[in-house]
Amino acid sequence: MNLIDQLAQAFCCLPGVGPKTAQRMVLYLLERDREGGRHLSAQLALAMEKVGHCRRCRNLTEDETCDVCLAAGRDPGLLCVVESPGDVLAIEHTGHYRGYYFVLMGTLSPIDGIGPGELGIDELVARAADGVGEVILALASTVEGEATMHYIAEALKGRDVSVTRIAQGVPLGGELEFVDGGTLSHALSGRKAIQGD
Amino acid sequence: MNLIDQLAQAFCCLPGVGPKTAQRMVLYLLERDREGGRHLSAQLALAMEKVGHCRRCRNLTEDETCDVCLAAGRDPGLLCVVESPGDVLAIEHTGHYRGYYFVLMGTLSPIDGIGPGELGIDELVARAADGVGEVILALASTVEGEATMHYIAEALKGRDVSVTRIAQGVPLGGELEFVDGGTLSHALSGRKAIQGD
Repeated sequence: MNLIDQLAQAFCCLPGVGPKTAQRMVLYLLERDREGGRHLSAQLALAMEKVGHCRRCRNLTEDETCDVCLAAGRDPGLLCVVESPGDVLAIEHTGHYRGYYFVLMGTLSPIDGIGPGELGIDELVARAADGVGEVILALASTVEGEATMHYIAEALKGRDVSVTRIAQGVPLGGELEFVDGGTLSHALSGRKAIQGD
Repeated sequence: MNLIDQLAQAFCCLPGVGPKTAQRMVLYLLERDREGGRHLSAQLALAMEKVGHCRRCRNLTEDETCDVCLAAGRDPGLLCVVESPGDVLAIEHTGHYRGYYFVLMGTLSPIDGIGPGELGIDELVARAADGVGEVILALASTVEGEATMHYIAEALKGRDVSVTRIAQGVPLGGELEFVDGGTLSHALSGRKAIQGD
């Protein structure tokens, strides 16, 4: 196999990239942006080598402790538990959360050999005892997410910390008729008074 | 900027990859496929360094002469002129062409400083004199493509070689009502007898 085909095959490891897209990427870089290709190669090698996990929140970072954990002015009483680094970015992007995070890097999945140890639940419990007033569970409402939230809530039972989960309901701008039944049931049972409370 | 953001930015040089997709690619590689990321980095560096142009047909290759030009059993009387390496792959994929290629690596575009010299038209004319019976122009029917085909046809005028262009008409499986007017006009004026010729 020649170098062009080998490179196209290597691109296929990326999510959402099939053989056709990979070929387009390879030809584009070779014909028009070799400098960009070299830069991408160097950055890839560097990141794969240097990026590890934050020792406080387990998020991805090239330092011992990540930027969020080091940031000044955050509320040490709030700890938001998420599944992955992408969730941290999504929540940070809202600009409405000023506490800290704990990144599980997965959900409980015994069949894949992912238990409480792999998710660092013990570290989470220790962290929650360290001046945290509220643990916010921000996991997806999937079977694995629900099981993981249940496990964490149980592990924190009896400790001096309140455990909450993010609201479930209809998304902003969502037409009711296109919302699935499960979400609609949750939105109904979780209704809030807006007058005459 | 940290390594994760730098890598995401480097991914944005790829066609069709914006900041969101780039972030997804970076997190995917860091969380689940570091080996794939390292492999991609190595292949990228290698290809950007080693891949050059075939000295016979100007196609991309890491060797002096490309696989197609070296292949035995091809018809030396046929020379297909295309715009880019992607076009060679597309025609090869059909399996219906057994001649050789000449890759212009662009089309005439004086405003971008691309003239006959950059496209290797002199090499093409010399090549056509070397036992070629038919030069097939397989360029897109854009303004630049038409101008380039016209220029090549003029350059080959008076030489002992026939010059053809690929057929224009309705695509296979294309509903007539969705075909644009220009294509339909070409298809009508280029009609072929199927009976009583």
